[in-house]
Amino acid sequence: MTRMTPLGPDEPASHPYRLAARRSTAGDSAIDVGGRRIGGGDFALIAGPCAIETRDETIAIARVVRDAGATMLRGGAYKPRTSPYAFQGLGQAGLQILADARSETGLPVVTEVMDVRDVEAVAAVADMIQIGARNMQNYALLTEVGRARVPVLIKRGLSSTIDELLMAAEYVLKEGNAGVVLCERGIRTFETAYRFTLDLAAVAVLKTLTHLPVIVDPSHAAGRRDLVEPLALAAAAVGADGIIVEVHPDPDAAVCDGPQALRCDDFARFAARVQHVAAAAGERFAATAPA
Amino acid sequence: MTRMTPLGPDEPASHPYRLAARRSTAGDSAIDVGGRRIGGGDFALIAGPCAIETRDETIAIARVVRDAGATMLRGGAYKPRTSPYAFQGLGQAGLQILADARSETGLPVVTEVMDVRDVEAVAAVADMIQIGARNMQNYALLTEVGRARVPVLIKRGLSSTIDELLMAAEYVLKEGNAGVVLCERGIRTFETAYRFTLDLAAVAVLKTLTHLPVIVDPSHAAGRRDLVEPLALAAAAVGADGIIVEVHPDPDAAVCDGPQALRCDDFARFAARVQHVAAAAGERFAATAPA
Amino acid sequence: MTRMTPLGPDEPASHPYRLAARRSTAGDSAIDVGGRRIGGGDFALIAGPCAIETRDETIAIARVVRDAGATMLRGGAYKPRTSPYAFQGLGQAGLQILADARSETGLPVVTEVMDVRDVEAVAAVADMIQIGARNMQNYALLTEVGRARVPVLIKRGLSSTIDELLMAAEYVLKEGNAGVVLCERGIRTFETAYRFTLDLAAVAVLKTLTHLPVIVDPSHAAGRRDLVEPLALAAAAVGADGIIVEVHPDPDAAVCDGPQALRCDDFARFAARVQHVAAAAGERFAATAPA
Amino acid sequence: MTRMTPLGPDEPASHPYRLAARRSTAGDSAIDVGGRRIGGGDFALIAGPCAIETRDETIAIARVVRDAGATMLRGGAYKPRTSPYAFQGLGQAGLQILADARSETGLPVVTEVMDVRDVEAVAAVADMIQIGARNMQNYALLTEVGRARVPVLIKRGLSSTIDELLMAAEYVLKEGNAGVVLCERGIRTFETAYRFTLDLAAVAVLKTLTHLPVIVDPSHAAGRRDLVEPLALAAAAVGADGIIVEVHPDPDAAVCDGPQALRCDDFARFAARVQHVAAAAGERFAATAPA
Repeated sequence: MTRMTPLGPDEPASHPYRLAARRSTAGDSAIDVGGRRIGGGDFALIAGPCAIETRDETIAIARVVRDAGATMLRGGAYKPRTSPYAFQGLGQAGLQILADARSETGLPVVTEVMDVRDVEAVAAVADMIQIGARNMQNYALLTEVGRARVPVLIKRGLSSTIDELLMAAEYVLKEGNAGVVLCERGIRTFETAYRFTLDLAAVAVLKTLTHLPVIVDPSHAAGRRDLVEPLALAAAAVGADGIIVEVHPDPDAAVCDGPQALRCDDFARFAARVQHVAAAAGERFAATAPA
Repeated sequence: MTRMTPLGPDEPASHPYRLAARRSTAGDSAIDVGGRRIGGGDFALIAGPCAIETRDETIAIARVVRDAGATMLRGGAYKPRTSPYAFQGLGQAGLQILADARSETGLPVVTEVMDVRDVEAVAAVADMIQIGARNMQNYALLTEVGRARVPVLIKRGLSSTIDELLMAAEYVLKEGNAGVVLCERGIRTFETAYRFTLDLAAVAVLKTLTHLPVIVDPSHAAGRRDLVEPLALAAAAVGADGIIVEVHPDPDAAVCDGPQALRCDDFARFAARVQHVAAAAGERFAATAPA
Repeated sequence: MTRMTPLGPDEPASHPYRLAARRSTAGDSAIDVGGRRIGGGDFALIAGPCAIETRDETIAIARVVRDAGATMLRGGAYKPRTSPYAFQGLGQAGLQILADARSETGLPVVTEVMDVRDVEAVAAVADMIQIGARNMQNYALLTEVGRARVPVLIKRGLSSTIDELLMAAEYVLKEGNAGVVLCERGIRTFETAYRFTLDLAAVAVLKTLTHLPVIVDPSHAAGRRDLVEPLALAAAAVGADGIIVEVHPDPDAAVCDGPQALRCDDFARFAARVQHVAAAAGERFAATAPA
Repeated sequence: MTRMTPLGPDEPASHPYRLAARRSTAGDSAIDVGGRRIGGGDFALIAGPCAIETRDETIAIARVVRDAGATMLRGGAYKPRTSPYAFQGLGQAGLQILADARSETGLPVVTEVMDVRDVEAVAAVADMIQIGARNMQNYALLTEVGRARVPVLIKRGLSSTIDELLMAAEYVLKEGNAGVVLCERGIRTFETAYRFTLDLAAVAVLKTLTHLPVIVDPSHAAGRRDLVEPLALAAAAVGADGIIVEVHPDPDAAVCDGPQALRCDDFARFAARVQHVAAAAGERFAATAPA
């Protein structure tokens, strides 16, 4: 993980994001997540189901994405849902399934935490804890994951500014957790042809402002499977340090967000195309390489 | 408080907000907050400082707003701040000051909770608990305040849709807490002449969709003192059930949001104008009347 | 019409809107439109059909709105339509119908021009020329109406900033036409419960920045009849100098925008409520008074 | 240029964009612009100054971009400016300079028209006429360029939906001009770190809806030079049919939009990188190849 250089005497106390700012360290930070790296030239391909549904299915998906070159497995055990009547995730049982999938495939796992009271349990299993877009300004939660021993993936709120995203990172960094990865996942605009407007300029801006790795989630932005690939290629080209995508063997049967999930049987082709464009844009695709 | 009518056989299980929906009860709900009412024709004027700073100042402001006809006192003990380096509120000490201000003035108090672990302590003091805009989709927090014994004021997220606001209310109602008040406080748009775009059409839409009271916060929307009064008048005219505004004796010295605070010595004139327009639009101004 | 005071030596040449700026003249400008006034305390109620359809219907609507206290008649002869296959308006024949309706009722008429080549013909009939939201930055058209002898109503573009609206006014003023009225009609945001987000804060901001009258179009903002009245009341309360609304005897049969049109048989009640709130907010309702 | 296939009997008369729709023709349309092609696999690199300033400078820039592989020269003779007091372009003299630059370099030229009365003069010189974002719904102008004999580049309005952009194309196509190219150039959102939010998902959506070529303008979206290259690479990766960028020998001295102009002496490197990523994403870079 990155080492923070001490702030010099010319560093104003009021600096808005003193630890996240590019000037606070030399070069780009690379974050170690369960033995794989994100940032510093290593392009991460994080893939998996939206929600953890069953053990067998999760392990099957994990094998598919690992064989195609994914670097990490994603999957939701605790799911933020707009409606209280919608499926809320398997919770602790889902975490156990993720641990099993890691054992079976060797992939580090990334999963979301929504409640400060769950941070300890999630951190005990996850290789990287995700803060979802809806909780990007849940400061109690940011502070709590700042005290955890695993890296934190912070998704940009759907109408959060770039500055606010960096300040959310600062809440985590301030507690001593230097393993912060940022994620652009679409902002809310007037356009209705897709779900959110993927703001790739934000990735380019963030790379000028911070040393932290920045990845992109084209699945949640698009909300439509057919847009995920072109947006993933664009993310690779714009200079992102990785992407996080949803994959499912039978999207029509998925309990949530099926319409945006890539199909397992198409994933290897998808991953190869992303790898090809990332390489053309100068990223090292760390998919199958040891960190 | 409102009584929920049982859902009939024609009520689809998938109804998006079955308890918040207008059809789920007869007429408008009026919520009792420490002996004052919001909704059902009673217009609430909630006023006070942004953050609780000192005991003397808080009580002085409470007297000013009570004498001018305010129905409740607002004030933040726990403050959500974009920066971890900014003043975060007095916490428990701030709650005690609010309790003292209530004793001195008889005004019920409204204050924000940000952490599920603080809900019990805040509910022990507050007459109404506020869920701030940044936490509107913090489902753990919504569930917890749904189990509290005091009404809940839910502020619309800064890019939350009207549907999402109603679903946030549903999280609270589902736990058995029928005392929900909604608050429009501005949405994020491209315009930079003020802080957020106050969406008064949302108030009118909400009145068609839900039986819950809907109030307006012109102070946070505007971010500028000179816009608070015209927006408060507009809120009164559009059919809101109340407004919540920030007041300070010396805005230039306020620890936060001073530029949007009304001045204490102008508050009585302001309140009278709001009362006049609310009456013209058909609202009963419950300011000084017993509940 | 307003007289512009000469700019003093302290006026920077680079002032962004030197003629529209509040400081460029003393007090509020009142614009004379065919004998009626807008601004300077006179509240205008402009009403009529979206598009001119037939002579009889137009005159019937004109009588209804005049008897209810409207100060001007609106109606589109040239209609901007998103689709080239939609009804484009009656053109010159529509202008003649408007002239007839004025003769029959005494109401000044307001109608839109979309093509620089039509300005002369429209100005020959209209008492006020409307620049629609889609043409707010059509600088050729703004320049041309700036040379016309009748006042100009400029609608804010659906994502134009307040500054850009004032600069559009400046294009007209610069050509020597001092009769400019601004109109807020909703901006584009993420919310889909209505058509556009009516930005009433913009009205309050404009009143601080410019001496020009500012009116509000709740019909196009809402796109729904049930929201027009609460938004019209809010506009009256926020300090607008008038409103412009659509009225139709049989909205279901209207060739365009029927769902947002007020019904003729409800218009007198509507006008009385607006008048009541405008008076409470301190505006003089110039509806039936001679200018 | 593309040939439109007759609409079949299953084509509803109310189809929103019958000529622009993908189903209205077989495959992708390639548009011939002065001997170079856009679309159908040919990636266009259109480059040049924001505004035409002088003959010598324009020709110098044209040589630089041609030698680096640009396929067309852009440059504004008529400039839409927010302020009436800003430089409005050289007009007819600017058109003559563009014609001279074409003679010197062989590059086809693209330039904007803003006034229906100028269409004939502009079409006499331009190889492709540009409709700027502010005029995307100027229907009189769209109709007029639909009658011209040269292709038309339509820039998306800054808050126009994808549907509205296609309907703008339909206005041109309906008049018989099949040479329409669409351009994404950023939409207006709340983010202030750059000028407009480049909506690359819109490019991917457009490619599913229409057979027309779609290019991207990263310069106007970004408003900052440092973002132009990453966004250009992303555009190449997302499947755009080309990009249009601003170039200047001395951006600090440019009369408009200097901060977003690429430097002439860096352009060859830039073009090579774009070419490399476009090739990786499967586009044929038609820069120096004859059509």
